[in-house]
Amino acid sequence: MPVYGAIEAGGTKFNCLVGSGPDQILAEIRIPTTSPAETFGQVLQFFGEQAKTNPLAAVGVGSFGPVDLYPGSPTYGTITSTVKPGWQMTDFVGPLKAALRVPVAFDTDVNAAAYGEHKWGAARGLTQFIYMTVGTGIGVGEMCAGKLVHGLVHPEGGHMLIPHDRQQDPFPGVCHFHGDCFEGLASGPAMQARWGIPAEKLPASSPAWALEARYLALAIINQIYMLSPQRIILGGGVMEQALLFPLIQEEAQQLLNGYVRSPQITDRIEEYIVPPALGSRAGVLGALALAMDAAGPRE
Amino acid sequence: MPVYGAIEAGGTKFNCLVGSGPDQILAEIRIPTTSPAETFGQVLQFFGEQAKTNPLAAVGVGSFGPVDLYPGSPTYGTITSTVKPGWQMTDFVGPLKAALRVPVAFDTDVNAAAYGEHKWGAARGLTQFIYMTVGTGIGVGEMCAGKLVHGLVHPEGGHMLIPHDRQQDPFPGVCHFHGDCFEGLASGPAMQARWGIPAEKLPASSPAWALEARYLALAIINQIYMLSPQRIILGGGVMEQALLFPLIQEEAQQLLNGYVRSPQITDRIEEYIVPPALGSRAGVLGALALAMDAAGPRE
Repeated sequence: MPVYGAIEAGGTKFNCLVGSGPDQILAEIRIPTTSPAETFGQVLQFFGEQAKTNPLAAVGVGSFGPVDLYPGSPTYGTITSTVKPGWQMTDFVGPLKAALRVPVAFDTDVNAAAYGEHKWGAARGLTQFIYMTVGTGIGVGEMCAGKLVHGLVHPEGGHMLIPHDRQQDPFPGVCHFHGDCFEGLASGPAMQARWGIPAEKLPASSPAWALEARYLALAIINQIYMLSPQRIILGGGVMEQALLFPLIQEEAQQLLNGYVRSPQITDRIEEYIVPPALGSRAGVLGALALAMDAAGPRE
Repeated sequence: MPVYGAIEAGGTKFNCLVGSGPDQILAEIRIPTTSPAETFGQVLQFFGEQAKTNPLAAVGVGSFGPVDLYPGSPTYGTITSTVKPGWQMTDFVGPLKAALRVPVAFDTDVNAAAYGEHKWGAARGLTQFIYMTVGTGIGVGEMCAGKLVHGLVHPEGGHMLIPHDRQQDPFPGVCHFHGDCFEGLASGPAMQARWGIPAEKLPASSPAWALEARYLALAIINQIYMLSPQRIILGGGVMEQALLFPLIQEEAQQLLNGYVRSPQITDRIEEYIVPPALGSRAGVLGALALAMDAAGPRE
């Protein structure tokens, strides 16, 4: 059976694994995100060791960004204008290909997670859906017509502008670029800055959750209006507070006000706005799924 | 040469034509939108007459909505929950197929216009772009991965919620469902209600245009963040005020604040946010393009 490599590249750690499916994982490692040279060195060492006993057919990458996904571009496969120090204009695909000599699939971390959910999780059989992660940042991965959405650059749905009632919530937002954009109002760091407590320590009784659900619902209904997804999957650290789901579902229905007449929304919203079936492993398993595609059809 | 039928079905009139391309139009007619029975009667009469001399290979429809685009649905091809009296749950595809006995392609009016621009207009060669019309309502048609976007229902981008500063603009909005959603703030009727003058009669010196450009730019940057389109085409009656384009382009760049680093946006925005190359004929010509596809490959 062919074996594949997968990398979920995050701002604090790289999750790497070798295997051929969610239940066929041969090896797995977490590598801290320090400098590109050091981190890539450890990544290549891991895959090099593994390849001695299990030659890799391909490697898949889901990376933090922004990244260049345009195949014809001279900077294809690089992390571009990231705010992470030392990582601007870092070639990701080049060193992997040179060292491992296998096809390398490259996409955003959230598109990879979306793809993992499509292959093995909550989006099986769907051709149009959204995977959104709410944590240190807010990222949006999308599938449309059965393909992961790239476009001019790639979606950056966390930065959309949503209504912000400064009388109810005078918090100015934490986005370095836009202040009170969606991510500036609703990411983990925004919650911590607004309430003085990290999101994971806020009690269920805190008014923080109703406000958070409101912002998430506002962004979600805009996604529904813009893309008409068949399902919306919400992952990331902030979403581990499970009471958010019913709050978001109720708020989204109220905001839509019956306009989008689909039973998935009007009658079964608890099956429409859902957590990832793969949990926090959606990203690295999605990278594995990308690798399996990149290797081409099995002989 | 095969000949095709096209229908752009609007709330006030149906534009119908027979031909095989933008420069090969054999006949064209405008039929007022009264009752379904009366309007369809005239439509079928027109095509029936034409078919006597030029048998139609297929018919394409771009319709006002909401419409049911899901091929497996029992109500596929109908206009569903429209606010237009008498037109709720009107079967569109059924009567056409029964009377004309040819394949019928059916999509939203804005998707048809997007497809027209893709085939013969400002979106040739693009695989991911947006066509937005700003008039009596605001509609958004989209292509993603080379396909027109449908999804759960179809996009209703006019109803997205955008920041609304009630101190600067206390106008409550005109949307029956959502008050001050994007359409509620920026459609033609919203402009007329806010300023007491129809949009087409507001002078270029009116403060209306800067405010309108602001709302359009807010919606456009949300579209950029959500979909990363390769181009955004703006049509419809309100956009006939040509000074809107530079105002929107400038406002969009300011709102993005350098975050989306693509030369199409940072350096050449006048080629990125553009009017339709087919003008007001994008919709009916797009319906013609849909018909040409529905007829299948030419022998």
